[in-house]
Amino acid sequence: MAKERVGFIGTGIMGRPMAQNLLKAGYSVTIHNRTKAKAEQLLLDGAAWAANPAEVANNSDVVITCVTDTPDVRKVLLGEHGVIEAARPGLICIDMSTISPSATKEMGEILGAKGVILIDAPISGGEIGAIEGKLSIMMGGPKETVEKARSIMEVMGRTVTWCGPLGSGQMTKLANQIMVIHTIMSIAEGLAFAEKAGLDLHTTLKVTSAGAAASHSLKALGPKIIAGDFAPAFMVDLQQKDLRLVLEYAEQLKQPLPGVALAKQLLSVLQARGRGRDGTQALVEVIRQLGKSID
Amino acid sequence: MAKERVGFIGTGIMGRPMAQNLLKAGYSVTIHNRTKAKAEQLLLDGAAWAANPAEVANNSDVVITCVTDTPDVRKVLLGEHGVIEAARPGLICIDMSTISPSATKEMGEILGAKGVILIDAPISGGEIGAIEGKLSIMMGGPKETVEKARSIMEVMGRTVTWCGPLGSGQMTKLANQIMVIHTIMSIAEGLAFAEKAGLDLHTTLKVTSAGAAASHSLKALGPKIIAGDFAPAFMVDLQQKDLRLVLEYAEQLKQPLPGVALAKQLLSVLQARGRGRDGTQALVEVIRQLGKSID
Repeated sequence: MAKERVGFIGTGIMGRPMAQNLLKAGYSVTIHNRTKAKAEQLLLDGAAWAANPAEVANNSDVVITCVTDTPDVRKVLLGEHGVIEAARPGLICIDMSTISPSATKEMGEILGAKGVILIDAPISGGEIGAIEGKLSIMMGGPKETVEKARSIMEVMGRTVTWCGPLGSGQMTKLANQIMVIHTIMSIAEGLAFAEKAGLDLHTTLKVTSAGAAASHSLKALGPKIIAGDFAPAFMVDLQQKDLRLVLEYAEQLKQPLPGVALAKQLLSVLQARGRGRDGTQALVEVIRQLGKSID
Repeated sequence: MAKERVGFIGTGIMGRPMAQNLLKAGYSVTIHNRTKAKAEQLLLDGAAWAANPAEVANNSDVVITCVTDTPDVRKVLLGEHGVIEAARPGLICIDMSTISPSATKEMGEILGAKGVILIDAPISGGEIGAIEGKLSIMMGGPKETVEKARSIMEVMGRTVTWCGPLGSGQMTKLANQIMVIHTIMSIAEGLAFAEKAGLDLHTTLKVTSAGAAASHSLKALGPKIIAGDFAPAFMVDLQQKDLRLVLEYAEQLKQPLPGVALAKQLLSVLQARGRGRDGTQALVEVIRQLGKSID
């Protein structure tokens, strides 16, 4: 069977290396990005350019979207010159952005009425995971369509999991982000306390990493905190976007999440100070600041 | 060099297997416990009984204490028939309880005036770690005394770390407990959300365990939450005692810890409902409860 023609909309920090991996794997890829300049390298590498999302869909069997937020996906799929203008039965859309689960379900119905199948497939693993094709991809939608898309997904991800019907990928991603922010709180308060107590942080890190306090965040970000390195593995602004999605959806579910609410407020201190583009490990700076005298 | 005569005060859930391991390793061990019945097996296994802590100290080169809270340690060391009544230069006291770092420093001075060296050496790793001799032991005190005690400690622990001067073991343990409670919050809110969203929790657990959300708590306690198993790996009542110590010491340090404060309040709901002897994973029940209608 010939490889599907793949469309890729959104060639930013994550999308660019993902599209690159599809090209390397021999897929014919048609791309579109709001800012064409960010797509130049992909065009040199053999991708075809399309002037808008509808044109991408006209030239593709499977259209992947990887943009920032719910309104961006809505515009690309349903807006003027959106994918919906090229809708035809059998077209598959795979949205790899992290957006609202309820908006995903709603857009799935609108596209479904035209025979287009929407799949949600948000990702985790960061820029390095995207470059190395080692993302974790959380998929929601009809199982047979997800399985059909699996070979394409496996070019970009190491772990491709079907999580349930449409929206389940987004919900799983949000559950993941809830867990992540608490582990960031863990290291921020734990290391700020240790520092204030005058402990040697290298020793603290070694001891705590070996036992019940261990977490991926402690291992990956603990050394960065000690080194004062606040370069982003994952940016505060993006974490906040995800936590907004978490709290919005939790409100729909009527599920209070007091810990997430607190963490989001504390992270917002970094945004207020113009540090929204720091990595999330900068949360330790907020906790430290709480323990400083007011000048 | 002959092996030191070891005294062991406090043969509870943790202390009993620890003393057992010392006997197995060939140490002569003199024990005392508030409730003698809980020491019977150790006496059958060859430990000698002492009527009170002073008598333990009279028969030992090194006295280990492993009791519950700050007042217990104070009573055993400085109270009537306490270790201090048998104080003599060169006697080493190793307190393996988790208690206040500042009380530890204070008691160290009082004992030090009589030539007794106090070491703090709180532990992590739970009952299983105690039985298997695989505890993590966080030591504070003069480095040469800690090194002198290392061979005894290594009978009980797999990781024996010198953390700094007296009190540093307790501070490190408290930093550890800060990190742990946040990872418990992580799985409580993450899994309560996933459940309310209707996700398959086994899939959620699998996906989240593989990435940035991974933690020791998720791996060890996530499956228990899914199975509805609230038997204690670590009891809510003990976690609350440790978090009280954290917040008391943080207040002395003038280091606000809003996340710990919130987590402690949420855990107190379990205590209010008579579930203080459940494992800390029961925190998920509190988050679930927040999302239920009021009857």
